[in-house]
Amino acid sequence: MSNKEPSIKPWGGRFAEATDKFVERFTASVSFDQRLYHHDINGSLAHAAMLAKVGVLTGDELIQIQTGLEEIRSEIEAGTFEWSVGLEDVHMNIEARLTQKIGITGKKLHTGRSRNDQVATDIRLYLRDEINAICGELTRLQTGLVELARREAHTIMPGFTHLQTAQPVSFGHHMLAWNEMLERDYSRLKDCSARMNQSPLGAAALAGTTYPIDRHYSAELLGFDRPTENSLDSVSDRDFAIEFAAAGSLLMTHLSRFSEELVLWTSAQFNFIDLPDRFCTGSSIMPQKKNPDVPELIRGKVGRVNGHLISLLTLMKSQPLAYNKDNQEDKEPIFDVIDTLKDSIKAYADMVPAITVNADVTREAAMRGFSTATDLADYLVRKGLPFRDAHEVVGKSVAYGIARKKDLSEMSLEELRQFSGDIDEDVFEVLTLEGSINARDHIGGTAPKQVLAAADRAAQRLNQR
Amino acid sequence: MSNKEPSIKPWGGRFAEATDKFVERFTASVSFDQRLYHHDINGSLAHAAMLAKVGVLTGDELIQIQTGLEEIRSEIEAGTFEWSVGLEDVHMNIEARLTQKIGITGKKLHTGRSRNDQVATDIRLYLRDEINAICGELTRLQTGLVELARREAHTIMPGFTHLQTAQPVSFGHHMLAWNEMLERDYSRLKDCSARMNQSPLGAAALAGTTYPIDRHYSAELLGFDRPTENSLDSVSDRDFAIEFAAAGSLLMTHLSRFSEELVLWTSAQFNFIDLPDRFCTGSSIMPQKKNPDVPELIRGKVGRVNGHLISLLTLMKSQPLAYNKDNQEDKEPIFDVIDTLKDSIKAYADMVPAITVNADVTREAAMRGFSTATDLADYLVRKGLPFRDAHEVVGKSVAYGIARKKDLSEMSLEELRQFSGDIDEDVFEVLTLEGSINARDHIGGTAPKQVLAAADRAAQRLNQR
Amino acid sequence: MSNKEPSIKPWGGRFAEATDKFVERFTASVSFDQRLYHHDINGSLAHAAMLAKVGVLTGDELIQIQTGLEEIRSEIEAGTFEWSVGLEDVHMNIEARLTQKIGITGKKLHTGRSRNDQVATDIRLYLRDEINAICGELTRLQTGLVELARREAHTIMPGFTHLQTAQPVSFGHHMLAWNEMLERDYSRLKDCSARMNQSPLGAAALAGTTYPIDRHYSAELLGFDRPTENSLDSVSDRDFAIEFAAAGSLLMTHLSRFSEELVLWTSAQFNFIDLPDRFCTGSSIMPQKKNPDVPELIRGKVGRVNGHLISLLTLMKSQPLAYNKDNQEDKEPIFDVIDTLKDSIKAYADMVPAITVNADVTREAAMRGFSTATDLADYLVRKGLPFRDAHEVVGKSVAYGIARKKDLSEMSLEELRQFSGDIDEDVFEVLTLEGSINARDHIGGTAPKQVLAAADRAAQRLNQR
Amino acid sequence: MSNKEPSIKPWGGRFAEATDKFVERFTASVSFDQRLYHHDINGSLAHAAMLAKVGVLTGDELIQIQTGLEEIRSEIEAGTFEWSVGLEDVHMNIEARLTQKIGITGKKLHTGRSRNDQVATDIRLYLRDEINAICGELTRLQTGLVELARREAHTIMPGFTHLQTAQPVSFGHHMLAWNEMLERDYSRLKDCSARMNQSPLGAAALAGTTYPIDRHYSAELLGFDRPTENSLDSVSDRDFAIEFAAAGSLLMTHLSRFSEELVLWTSAQFNFIDLPDRFCTGSSIMPQKKNPDVPELIRGKVGRVNGHLISLLTLMKSQPLAYNKDNQEDKEPIFDVIDTLKDSIKAYADMVPAITVNADVTREAAMRGFSTATDLADYLVRKGLPFRDAHEVVGKSVAYGIARKKDLSEMSLEELRQFSGDIDEDVFEVLTLEGSINARDHIGGTAPKQVLAAADRAAQRLNQR
Repeated sequence: MSNKEPSIKPWGGRFAEATDKFVERFTASVSFDQRLYHHDINGSLAHAAMLAKVGVLTGDELIQIQTGLEEIRSEIEAGTFEWSVGLEDVHMNIEARLTQKIGITGKKLHTGRSRNDQVATDIRLYLRDEINAICGELTRLQTGLVELARREAHTIMPGFTHLQTAQPVSFGHHMLAWNEMLERDYSRLKDCSARMNQSPLGAAALAGTTYPIDRHYSAELLGFDRPTENSLDSVSDRDFAIEFAAAGSLLMTHLSRFSEELVLWTSAQFNFIDLPDRFCTGSSIMPQKKNPDVPELIRGKVGRVNGHLISLLTLMKSQPLAYNKDNQEDKEPIFDVIDTLKDSIKAYADMVPAITVNADVTREAAMRGFSTATDLADYLVRKGLPFRDAHEVVGKSVAYGIARKKDLSEMSLEELRQFSGDIDEDVFEVLTLEGSINARDHIGGTAPKQVLAAADRAAQRLNQR
Repeated sequence: MSNKEPSIKPWGGRFAEATDKFVERFTASVSFDQRLYHHDINGSLAHAAMLAKVGVLTGDELIQIQTGLEEIRSEIEAGTFEWSVGLEDVHMNIEARLTQKIGITGKKLHTGRSRNDQVATDIRLYLRDEINAICGELTRLQTGLVELARREAHTIMPGFTHLQTAQPVSFGHHMLAWNEMLERDYSRLKDCSARMNQSPLGAAALAGTTYPIDRHYSAELLGFDRPTENSLDSVSDRDFAIEFAAAGSLLMTHLSRFSEELVLWTSAQFNFIDLPDRFCTGSSIMPQKKNPDVPELIRGKVGRVNGHLISLLTLMKSQPLAYNKDNQEDKEPIFDVIDTLKDSIKAYADMVPAITVNADVTREAAMRGFSTATDLADYLVRKGLPFRDAHEVVGKSVAYGIARKKDLSEMSLEELRQFSGDIDEDVFEVLTLEGSINARDHIGGTAPKQVLAAADRAAQRLNQR
Repeated sequence: MSNKEPSIKPWGGRFAEATDKFVERFTASVSFDQRLYHHDINGSLAHAAMLAKVGVLTGDELIQIQTGLEEIRSEIEAGTFEWSVGLEDVHMNIEARLTQKIGITGKKLHTGRSRNDQVATDIRLYLRDEINAICGELTRLQTGLVELARREAHTIMPGFTHLQTAQPVSFGHHMLAWNEMLERDYSRLKDCSARMNQSPLGAAALAGTTYPIDRHYSAELLGFDRPTENSLDSVSDRDFAIEFAAAGSLLMTHLSRFSEELVLWTSAQFNFIDLPDRFCTGSSIMPQKKNPDVPELIRGKVGRVNGHLISLLTLMKSQPLAYNKDNQEDKEPIFDVIDTLKDSIKAYADMVPAITVNADVTREAAMRGFSTATDLADYLVRKGLPFRDAHEVVGKSVAYGIARKKDLSEMSLEELRQFSGDIDEDVFEVLTLEGSINARDHIGGTAPKQVLAAADRAAQRLNQR
Repeated sequence: MSNKEPSIKPWGGRFAEATDKFVERFTASVSFDQRLYHHDINGSLAHAAMLAKVGVLTGDELIQIQTGLEEIRSEIEAGTFEWSVGLEDVHMNIEARLTQKIGITGKKLHTGRSRNDQVATDIRLYLRDEINAICGELTRLQTGLVELARREAHTIMPGFTHLQTAQPVSFGHHMLAWNEMLERDYSRLKDCSARMNQSPLGAAALAGTTYPIDRHYSAELLGFDRPTENSLDSVSDRDFAIEFAAAGSLLMTHLSRFSEELVLWTSAQFNFIDLPDRFCTGSSIMPQKKNPDVPELIRGKVGRVNGHLISLLTLMKSQPLAYNKDNQEDKEPIFDVIDTLKDSIKAYADMVPAITVNADVTREAAMRGFSTATDLADYLVRKGLPFRDAHEVVGKSVAYGIARKKDLSEMSLEELRQFSGDIDEDVFEVLTLEGSINARDHIGGTAPKQVLAAADRAAQRLNQR
């Protein structure tokens, strides 16, 4: 970034003293907001077209502006554009270059707008595109999860509550739990995108403009649903950034939960799954290590998104209307949330289809830990005991089993009948893992047939996106 | 709360040792979750009706349960119900009392469910009702704002950016900026409510149940759109709490911004408005003080909602599936967010209609500070100057005015023409406050006629809720 | 709490209209700040003694005030004191009662102070006592950890990085890691307490007072190190609350890490330890469950403390000087952080000595997972290989072992020598668990002899507190 | 950054498959941790010197390593060093280059350490230096504040509570309030630095090392007070990062409060001070604007530091021991907190001495708003009224004054005596501004003589740093 040119400010007239050099660097945003160049140019093109439509620009002037802006876009993309800190931000850098290229007409582009509505427009356009990209990756990840769920619908693993063995569940069922979380994330992102899809362009500095602008027209050109309703709100609103960060925090919270489970499941103690070497790294000192770095890192990354959410909420707390310089601090958090979501979802979308389940290990784990105790209680209820009493009977059987290191299915009928005379030979069916999971046969239940049906519904929803 | 009864736990069978007394108190939730009693009973009634429908309960048993639960509801509302910490939570307290009342049938109510799906159901029902109540208050507040906007559409105040006088705006226009923020808050709350309106009932502990339950039926009885899709997700999901807290943080952020402005505006320095004495308090030491306590306190309260949001996000970070005891920590934040929103919105809804505008002060303030400088620049553009050059001319006029303590409208034509020969006699029209605001005459602009039209549209939206 | 009495405000003179009833309740703090009564009375006693010393009160007046305040303390502790919301806060409630008791002299107590410096004093006194109490519990917990460390210094468990088996460690060594964290927590709490131990009393509303007060004297009576330096800062400063909450967040973060490990270690998959039944609870539906509720709940509780920290930081963000009503929101977070810390540390202090280690399980786990691979690499380095090359040799041995399901110690010399000719018969010593841990024999290392020495040093530090 | 070289990992031996290219980039830290190069090299030099001392390296080897590392330092500082993402982090980049330079000896440098203790050492060394730099800037800022306080000790401004005029205060007194906040910030930063000044070097991967290392020696070489006590804690502890971020949040909260006041004070409504043009910027559309960008931006930047604090707390929440990959996420927040603090304090240190006070405006503002009402009440108390009664009398006088738009000092003796017969001619002395501030003549009070004494004490503390 070149700093050599004199810093010609768009607002120099009133000032007796040049900006302090450190202050210039400290208050400039171009080092990070240049990322908005593409949408800034698109916003300017729409604004110029609108100005031409209402007669503020001539047809010729419009063409000059269009040509100039497209050349600038090419220069930026080719890496030949010289960004200047002295010109403060992406907007002034592009406008200064435009004027350099096409002369006096370039200065007319800013008629009827201000940087306040311009940046509000840019960032909405940018975020709208990025949400779309995130949603695309999310769909890819969910598709992988649904396929894995189908593949492992009949694989049995222990279901946990309190990280204690609770009841046997289908591995595929567990995968679909993750898919449900992501389904909500998707719908939250879409809600956020829809809610912000209004055009602030024309709000100008804060009060609107005296030019005969057509805000509906520029809104339409930019794919917005309509112009915003209030100019003061338009330039000071950063709700979309906060709502997006909040949706991102929830999404990353979900990925932190998957990650926790993948880390647990690849430990020697669980050993439920394997991750391919390409998603893992080793240790510089311990030659035997294969570390699940990707899930660990993503588990950690929820912190940065929560942090950005707080950053944005703190930023806006008790700001009076309308635009204040504080708002410049909105961009870096938004950008980093976008990057973090995109990378983390991509990593998961790549990794999930490559998960290998150690089905014998998960089955063996489900066998241990009295995981069918609830089934025994339900059996007793069907024999006529009230649920709370059945629970008591099974509790005592389990205490007996712990003392003798025997699972329920390993006890003899006599042993079981110590605790209730209602237990008969048919009890052993309900104590099998397959008996247990097949019996949970209702919508949302873990019976493999329900899991496959749920996977079908999930796939259908994904197809309809 | 009585602690005298022996603590009979619903899970005692397996345990060799009673719970430590401190641990019992430390892990119990009944001190705060008793607030869910009404929805817990409603959830139980629906569950019981469903059990009867599928034949798990007889019609007689159903009637006993219904009668018993309604009696318990009356006892709680009459304050005669004895809550017990030993019974841990609202669910066990009610169930124990039911069994005390109707005997063995009471124990059957828990068939085919677990506290995990029960609490998930209760809290969704509760939150759904509270969001409705919050939205009702919000509508009342917005109605007041729109009326105030209409009343003060022609009142002129300085619009600020960077808290520096920027351009004159309509006071009513400023009120509608606040209304726009609240409009988005309303829609976020409604989205949150719609997204969570699925029934977890029947997910049981984590995997579903072996009883032939009809989850669609109980969902319908409770006004849910449908049953949830996945049992593991159903018992571990707390997205709704986080999404609600995030919507609450944004709403309180908006109220913190209003509050900041009301505090500024009631200061001796601004003196833009008066608040009635009944919303203010005095000082124990300074006899002259009249403090805007209500806005100050609400400005502070955004902190607690942001805090609860972080609390909930931290809570869920990297929790493995399915239910963990950590989740018990979800309730107090949700309850406090609800209370804070309801009280703060109520305070604002009461206060807004009572705001008195010191229109002479706001007008005088708008006159100062070269607030029509942009109008002069626009005037020059209409005379043919490029915007950036017009900006330069006006900047120099302002520097001149500062040196001589003269506003633009106070300069003679000769003085003005020093800076540009394009300035003529007609310039003084654009330098008036009315000229300035009337000229911003497009959707979202501050022209009083646009403000009244915007107020009409806002009122219409409120009517259609 | 009675609301019947007329609300006589200490500031009514200037007001034409009574406070709105809802506003009165909304802005009152007495429902939570009555918790400060003991320190409020102590602060008043010191203030009165100072006023007597400088001649503002007579000796008789002082005695009346002292007697009256002590009676009020007794009434509060006996539960006979009638708190009134109309009197706003703990200060006015006590002062009103004092005047009721001793007449006109009661009104003189407020001479030369304001509620602004009064509440700042109260809360520092209160927090200072509570930090002491927390530090006491912390010492009890640390003492238990050090004893457990000594008891299990020779017990071998796998040390983990990335939750993958890394190297064998002493169980006692692991306990001392937790102790180090708590040691830092203790010193942070003490720093916080020392930094805030200055008396704001005498700052009055914001500027000091015109009475000839002796701030050094009242500071000394209250055990403060000195009076604060600046009156504006004294009434607006809430640093101590934030610093305390930050120290609390770190402490709870540490407890969340212990908790995570206890939850893991009590899972069927790890089974490293047992917690006594009295610290666990069961399931209402799954009769076999024994859930580690206490660690889970504490793991969740870190969320509320992080939340309060953010709440307080948000509260203070961009508040102008001096006291603003926003600050009333400081109390509930402080109180809840105190309660959470005290309960959580107490629960841990009770539980830690009762942890039972399944030493055969931890030893067996340490045997698996090639935990002595680093020892083999170090062995090769001692034979002359550069470390990075030795690492490569062992990496290949491990890959061989994984393929054949053989640990390093189970391979024959011939098998090992495939990878390096430098391996000799003496290799098997370094591949034993005891060999491995004993070899890490330096300060901070896991050799049992170092662990015992570290436990001695830790105990000594605890004794010197 | 070149990505062309094959990615030779320090842990490749055990792996069958190369790291995925995206995963390599996603998990690499070199793009941000290269910032640690200087301290990484210093850490390595100390480690090498220690290895030579204990005989693991020969004197010749040590010299080779020292020469090689210093050459690398020069290459990095000259910008000729080729950083490689394939080499993951700063540590491996430097070590790989060293081996390239000096051959097999380079590989010996990693003997007896791991990247886990290496990075923990680097970041402590780095942060220690940066805290020193921050403290230096802080001293410069405080020095400016104390000077400004001296200069304006006799300037009178209104003191505010609730942003309502409360009592007159010395402008210098207000400046010293800010200095007090920064004084606490300084001491918190020093406490943080002292607490973390222990050497983790030698903790190795997690358990210590089998080499005969001398941790005291390397600690001493690096200026640490002592080696850390526990190897597991050493590699997993990130307390220092969190404590530093918390201290940073408080410091930025203070700067946000100053900023709020500077923004208020430069508004047309307050107009208490002027900031030089070089610290302000203008508007692209409104030619008259002079915006206080620097304070606004700093007010916003508290958000990012609060965000990083939450990010780090979230990161560490419930992480099991010892090192996990999550911890890699600690660096970017620390770096950004450092940059934000340094820049913000520098901006303030530059700006504070250039603040110009509009003393006539502040004096006039102090005259209005009944700011000496408390003085009148105190006067009445000296005449024998109980404080609460005097308060009531003055309250009524103020109500009278508001109705007639007269300040207390503008009323005649007769008017004043309507409210109390105790008022005499001598009342007018206490109603002057000078009378009011001079009367608050005790430590911490606003009397100019106290302000000057406080400034002396503050300067003395600064000199003793």
